[in-house]
Amino acid sequence: MPHRLSTDAPDFETRFAQLLTLKREDSVDVDDAVAAIIADVRKRGDAALIELTQKFDRVRLTSDTLAFTEAEIDAAIAEIPPEERSALEHAAARIRAYHERQMPEDSQWTDDAGATLGWRWGPVDAAGLYVPGGLASYPSSVLMNAIPAKVAGVERLVVTAPTPDGKVNPLVLLAARLAGVDRVLRIGGAQAIAALAYGTESVPPVDKITGPGNAYVAAAKRRVFGRVGIDMIAGPSEILVIADEDNDPDWIALDLLSQAEHDESAQSILITTSAPLADAVAGAVAARLETLERRAIAGTSWEANGAIIVARDLGEAAALADQIAAEHLELCVADPQALAANIRHAGAMFLGKWTPEAIGDYIGGPNHVLPTARSARFSSGLSVMDFLKRTTMAQMTPAALSAIGPDAATLARSESLEAHGLSVQARLDLLNR
Amino acid sequence: MPHRLSTDAPDFETRFAQLLTLKREDSVDVDDAVAAIIADVRKRGDAALIELTQKFDRVRLTSDTLAFTEAEIDAAIAEIPPEERSALEHAAARIRAYHERQMPEDSQWTDDAGATLGWRWGPVDAAGLYVPGGLASYPSSVLMNAIPAKVAGVERLVVTAPTPDGKVNPLVLLAARLAGVDRVLRIGGAQAIAALAYGTESVPPVDKITGPGNAYVAAAKRRVFGRVGIDMIAGPSEILVIADEDNDPDWIALDLLSQAEHDESAQSILITTSAPLADAVAGAVAARLETLERRAIAGTSWEANGAIIVARDLGEAAALADQIAAEHLELCVADPQALAANIRHAGAMFLGKWTPEAIGDYIGGPNHVLPTARSARFSSGLSVMDFLKRTTMAQMTPAALSAIGPDAATLARSESLEAHGLSVQARLDLLNR
Repeated sequence: MPHRLSTDAPDFETRFAQLLTLKREDSVDVDDAVAAIIADVRKRGDAALIELTQKFDRVRLTSDTLAFTEAEIDAAIAEIPPEERSALEHAAARIRAYHERQMPEDSQWTDDAGATLGWRWGPVDAAGLYVPGGLASYPSSVLMNAIPAKVAGVERLVVTAPTPDGKVNPLVLLAARLAGVDRVLRIGGAQAIAALAYGTESVPPVDKITGPGNAYVAAAKRRVFGRVGIDMIAGPSEILVIADEDNDPDWIALDLLSQAEHDESAQSILITTSAPLADAVAGAVAARLETLERRAIAGTSWEANGAIIVARDLGEAAALADQIAAEHLELCVADPQALAANIRHAGAMFLGKWTPEAIGDYIGGPNHVLPTARSARFSSGLSVMDFLKRTTMAQMTPAALSAIGPDAATLARSESLEAHGLSVQARLDLLNR
Repeated sequence: MPHRLSTDAPDFETRFAQLLTLKREDSVDVDDAVAAIIADVRKRGDAALIELTQKFDRVRLTSDTLAFTEAEIDAAIAEIPPEERSALEHAAARIRAYHERQMPEDSQWTDDAGATLGWRWGPVDAAGLYVPGGLASYPSSVLMNAIPAKVAGVERLVVTAPTPDGKVNPLVLLAARLAGVDRVLRIGGAQAIAALAYGTESVPPVDKITGPGNAYVAAAKRRVFGRVGIDMIAGPSEILVIADEDNDPDWIALDLLSQAEHDESAQSILITTSAPLADAVAGAVAARLETLERRAIAGTSWEANGAIIVARDLGEAAALADQIAAEHLELCVADPQALAANIRHAGAMFLGKWTPEAIGDYIGGPNHVLPTARSARFSSGLSVMDFLKRTTMAQMTPAALSAIGPDAATLARSESLEAHGLSVQARLDLLNR
């Protein structure tokens, strides 16, 4: 049974607090192991990368076979059914169209003092995108990471995709090609992150690393942060559905299960103003769990982390949603825009019952790399901004320096930074001569 | 003697590479100590905070005296000379005006398929700003951190400012008040970061922590990253000046020294197309070092980390500047806009000889919290964006779902995520009935 709460129960606050702090992931401490792997790759380069890949992925590579050749990619792609190819192309086009609108503008103006100020955006030179191997090797994630980078104008784009036992998902290679990735490397784990951050003989270093991964990958990203930029550290997926009484319980059940099937640590929560719907959804989830392919995973997630909360009204639901700050927030209510305006924290919102969250995973347009574990309180999903950086600009004239320089010199002196003050004063002295 | 390089010397590449990888900071490993401090504050709250403050800052606090009272702030501010007060107000107004232009816009549109897409920006609920104690307790940094947060719309703003031996800089308190800070706490170090991230009985937790600090503060910020948002991990300050022959060597010398005086680990580099200017600047720096108040610090920084590079032309200088990716880049050349257009990586640019970098530290308008240690390759200075997060929005109609849903279902099946596919298919089935 998932957690079942009602806001009018006397123990609600306590149980809701427990739900928010539910420990969903074993925090295995892999930090020492990861530090050793990074040090090894920094020291021995390709040789370490090849040994570690043989050890962890049971694949024997050489410096020459670290990367897929174009011919290998062609051959893999040729196997893909046309329907899947066309769906991926459709998704790529929609994701690109959405992200193209995110490009920020440069700005420059001259203010009253005569100072010309502004800023300028520019892409990072090179980015590395981590694609997990095995179960979670998703072509959709390749599109979601690579397309914003390309839209931002990143010149060199590298994918690392481990191939455990030599297996690769051809759709991952197709997604990389559709997105304009320059090179796909058969490496993974902390060793891939180390190679991207520090470079080896065969892997030039990049400036920014993005993409999901396991505990080793997450620990490695945290360690190389500062040497290169990283995106967020992703935790298990989450969905919060807010639903009024006018909903098909089976649709809501499937939406909840579409997160639960990702991972036993995933979390699916329903908040509804209708107790009958709460019961009906619980029943519908149980029914779907009878036959779902990934029922073992989804069932465990739903039992351990799932929750159904009955709220008095949508105002109360909105307040709870802000505390949950969900990665995905579905608003299956009559006026979803009005409810959305009342909620501050969520990674992505899906408005109305015709917008199942899965649309956003693949083809809606917005990015599916989103802040988890309540981090939507302070962070955003992946976007072109992650692959851009801003340079601020300032240009004084003699008149502008005369107008604002004396106060700068005063502040420099107050901070006991004499040379700061003198660097302004020397110029003012010439003007005042 | 600082490093002296010339691009036409045969060993230039080697020596330039050495300069880029110069180890300027002792990487003291304080991680275990910091982990223990954070665990202690999480476990014992105020009691730990008070004990640690007594131990490190030699100040005896209680839960009631953790924060400055309004009366204490009033009294401290009353001592400030009017000239300094007015300079700080002038700076605050200019910084506010610059950052107000950074507010990004929300967006919403309906595409050809009938899908309504967009995004919405909103502020974090609460932010904590770390202000170092002692030498580096700069009121200007309070403005640079707090004003962007206020402009972003952050409701609750807390400053932590340790008061070693009970000493506080009144200008820090004034800057906090001018910027609209709600509360100033007399705590510092890793214990302050822990309190801001996890909360104690007297310190409510925040969502985002920014501000510079020592190795303990940096390690603590790295550790709490994910629980809360953090800004970059700041390293020692840097300046790169590119100058043509038509410059006053003393001005350039003062600009270089205004970084060198911050810290023995700071780095000041001049690239010039004029060998005579190179010699003249070297002489001017030596002359200024005779009398500069902070000559011990500035001298050590200049000897150990400073460099003068003679380049053949400005194109070559620009290419070197991109490799250095300096925090501060001053362009003392005849056409600084043209040179700026030719350089991709820098935290902040200061254009023309009338724009000493120190103007940007105090009053120019752009933020002075900037990426160090070559991280301008992939990151930006502090801005209102650091206190905002984006929620993406998507709303399908039945027609939109019919148009794009089938491809989403295809992709879900290709990723073996059955419930994802079914959540779309169940809706399509109703429409196709």
